[in-house]
Amino acid sequence: MNTLFFANALLPNGWARNVRLDIDPAGNFAAISADSRPDGAARVDGVAIPGMPNLHSHAFQRAMAGLTETVGSAPGGVEDSFWTWREVMYRFVGKLEPDDLRAIATQLYAEMLCSGYTAVAEFHYLHHDVDGRPYADPAEMSRAVAEAARTAGIGQTLLPVLYASGGFGGKPAGDVQRRFLHTVDDYLRLVATLERAYRDDPQIRVGIAPHSLRAVPPETLREAIVGLDAIDQDAPIHIHIAEQTKEVEDCLAWSAQRPVDWLLQHAPVGPRWCLVHATHMTGQETAALAASGAVAGLCPTTEANLGDGLFPLVAYLAANGRYGIGSDSHISVSPVEELRWLEYGQRLVTRRRNVAAQGWATGPGAATGAGLHQRALTGGAQACARPIGALGQGRRADLVVLDPDHPILAGRDGERLVDSYVFSGNAAVVRHVMVGGEWVVRDGRHRDGERIAEAYRQTVKRLAA
Amino acid sequence: MNTLFFANALLPNGWARNVRLDIDPAGNFAAISADSRPDGAARVDGVAIPGMPNLHSHAFQRAMAGLTETVGSAPGGVEDSFWTWREVMYRFVGKLEPDDLRAIATQLYAEMLCSGYTAVAEFHYLHHDVDGRPYADPAEMSRAVAEAARTAGIGQTLLPVLYASGGFGGKPAGDVQRRFLHTVDDYLRLVATLERAYRDDPQIRVGIAPHSLRAVPPETLREAIVGLDAIDQDAPIHIHIAEQTKEVEDCLAWSAQRPVDWLLQHAPVGPRWCLVHATHMTGQETAALAASGAVAGLCPTTEANLGDGLFPLVAYLAANGRYGIGSDSHISVSPVEELRWLEYGQRLVTRRRNVAAQGWATGPGAATGAGLHQRALTGGAQACARPIGALGQGRRADLVVLDPDHPILAGRDGERLVDSYVFSGNAAVVRHVMVGGEWVVRDGRHRDGERIAEAYRQTVKRLAA
Repeated sequence: MNTLFFANALLPNGWARNVRLDIDPAGNFAAISADSRPDGAARVDGVAIPGMPNLHSHAFQRAMAGLTETVGSAPGGVEDSFWTWREVMYRFVGKLEPDDLRAIATQLYAEMLCSGYTAVAEFHYLHHDVDGRPYADPAEMSRAVAEAARTAGIGQTLLPVLYASGGFGGKPAGDVQRRFLHTVDDYLRLVATLERAYRDDPQIRVGIAPHSLRAVPPETLREAIVGLDAIDQDAPIHIHIAEQTKEVEDCLAWSAQRPVDWLLQHAPVGPRWCLVHATHMTGQETAALAASGAVAGLCPTTEANLGDGLFPLVAYLAANGRYGIGSDSHISVSPVEELRWLEYGQRLVTRRRNVAAQGWATGPGAATGAGLHQRALTGGAQACARPIGALGQGRRADLVVLDPDHPILAGRDGERLVDSYVFSGNAAVVRHVMVGGEWVVRDGRHRDGERIAEAYRQTVKRLAA
Repeated sequence: MNTLFFANALLPNGWARNVRLDIDPAGNFAAISADSRPDGAARVDGVAIPGMPNLHSHAFQRAMAGLTETVGSAPGGVEDSFWTWREVMYRFVGKLEPDDLRAIATQLYAEMLCSGYTAVAEFHYLHHDVDGRPYADPAEMSRAVAEAARTAGIGQTLLPVLYASGGFGGKPAGDVQRRFLHTVDDYLRLVATLERAYRDDPQIRVGIAPHSLRAVPPETLREAIVGLDAIDQDAPIHIHIAEQTKEVEDCLAWSAQRPVDWLLQHAPVGPRWCLVHATHMTGQETAALAASGAVAGLCPTTEANLGDGLFPLVAYLAANGRYGIGSDSHISVSPVEELRWLEYGQRLVTRRRNVAAQGWATGPGAATGAGLHQRALTGGAQACARPIGALGQGRRADLVVLDPDHPILAGRDGERLVDSYVFSGNAAVVRHVMVGGEWVVRDGRHRDGERIAEAYRQTVKRLAA
């Protein structure tokens, strides 16, 4: 048994002093006690908070960051939008081999750890060889991202993506999507293979990700969920939804329903589900999504970069909706940049302040940053379907040690410290990071950062050539 | 003569290779030549870009960052807004002594340097003792912020603020504003004193800052400008304007004109001027401001934090308007966070991408991040009224060395490198920083960072007590 001692730590019931954390050999918190003595424990100099789950990642896109901020970077000369960005992404995806994906994902995950993310839900859609044929091992690409998580030392919810059609109504997929496609039977075989491979690994959980309503026809969606239930009836289900107004229009044209409305009425949406983006909802859809118990997967920096729009957070929190955050395209890799801009988007449209404090705590003293942070921990853990997101008995021993001597946090404690971290913080205030009972970041440096970065640099240079 | 050599540098006409920069003993670029040989020069490992001017700062507010993100943090129980934030700021301001201001500003400026800002326009309104009486030396607080700039090693445009009334129509100021107030005669004496004190310091330029139309009645504004012209007829003039819709309403009620409209018609607004925020403008005001040659002082992270609203950037750029960026309240201290969220605000409302590339360059290949960055260099230098903002002969030798080996920049060069820096960057990619020919940041560390941080921590802890 390894025991840590912190002068200050954020426990499930709030801030506590003189906290002992007992960690068992499997990497779980065996016992946690506040107002304790440090005898025999390893004192850690800093403030302990839970590690943040990152509930939406397309790891390979990290290597594209900054390459699509260019007018007309897609063919055709049309106005830049999500859809022209997607063309550039498709061209990039056409070049990646398993070793490239492994190197990019490992570097990305190391950066996530340094910034305070300790778990990631990898929405993984790049399955097949460059010509669209399955690899000799059809799980080769999925294993590459799982190995990246192991090497970097981050927890992972591995979500192989089901992609079956190129648009609503079963429109055939295009050649650019050839590396993503599965029949539902082949897809379920892949899911079962992965579930068997990682069943005994406490750091990896397998779930599914029907890509979107435009990529998965209704009958295919139904079959995938039935198939998943036969493998693991608690496994998480993530889906992209209502990110773009064009998607809403196309869904209306196809079904006379909006995407979130359609999904809530045609699929067993509940706490296992994570609806990624859900940007464009009516008030009725917003309330219904909140009532479902599903998690909204919010990705503020990517949604801003792609010009998607703003999630209706005020109405969603009023209905007690659950959310977590994801860095998605990884244009930014920072939990605090996601959280503050989630709040700021609402402030800019409502012209009020401290919007997301609503529903977290009310009345004077409710701390907006602390509320944003706590909701994202809870919702993110639910979406990842792993015992994470809190310093609590039986959970994975994932934690972030903030540097209370950093000027950004100087003189702050408790909720004010979280507010300063969320609104003014960055990776420089993250001192150490532990995942599953192992230190993966010490003094701001990843345990294997130099080797991982060098492999990444070689990969990016080769891809650019 | 000190000579530096860079394999890659961003010169006024674009990216150049094998660049020699000759720096004279006064800290100016004496000569710059591309396609040169490194003989006898000090080779610097990294990519040189101009340092970014920060055109709007209230230094003391840095120590409040994270303390106002709390529901009902102002008295009265009213809905949180800019105006309740201001109440908290007024309470904080009531406690500060000159040594506190010096310690806070020095730490802030050191952080600015580490993040890539090399100059700051300090909009300085905290003049008098806690009881509202002038200090024995009426310039004491102004000298404190100038000394902070010297100690940290950042260039400064020192803008003592004229604050004379508590609202439109000469409404008397309140007791909470007692530390800010001057008669115009006393104010001009302060400006003249400071101009004499720093006339021969190439690192400091003095200008004026009429606080806002609500704090400076028309006749007072006229007298201040006439008085400034007698001291220095090229000195810069900065003013807060149209940050809040209530300010627009109050101005309309008082004058039947909107603030920007009123100012453009009643003051000699031109290239000497910086209109800070200018958030709420009609199309006509937007075009007229652009035509004036003044600089719009945009502060995206503060404007979002305060719930101000979004600047009409698309229309302003279409009219060839000039802008620079400021960190204002210092809730974030990062030029790249300002730049990307300036662009993202527009993307979120227009649902398009690469909005700010417009007017910078057109057609395929125009790089949005490079355009955002270049405009902010040029506009920021104009607003600071100092020879900065470019690696060019006769300019101050201010530069930022980016780390091309950082994974965020790996495999990028030229405009793509700037795009990756702006959209995915952070302080970790800033390797070295030079101001006025002196290295102030090496390998990410400020030359006097530990001592400055310790003084800051002591100050913040004392203020919190």
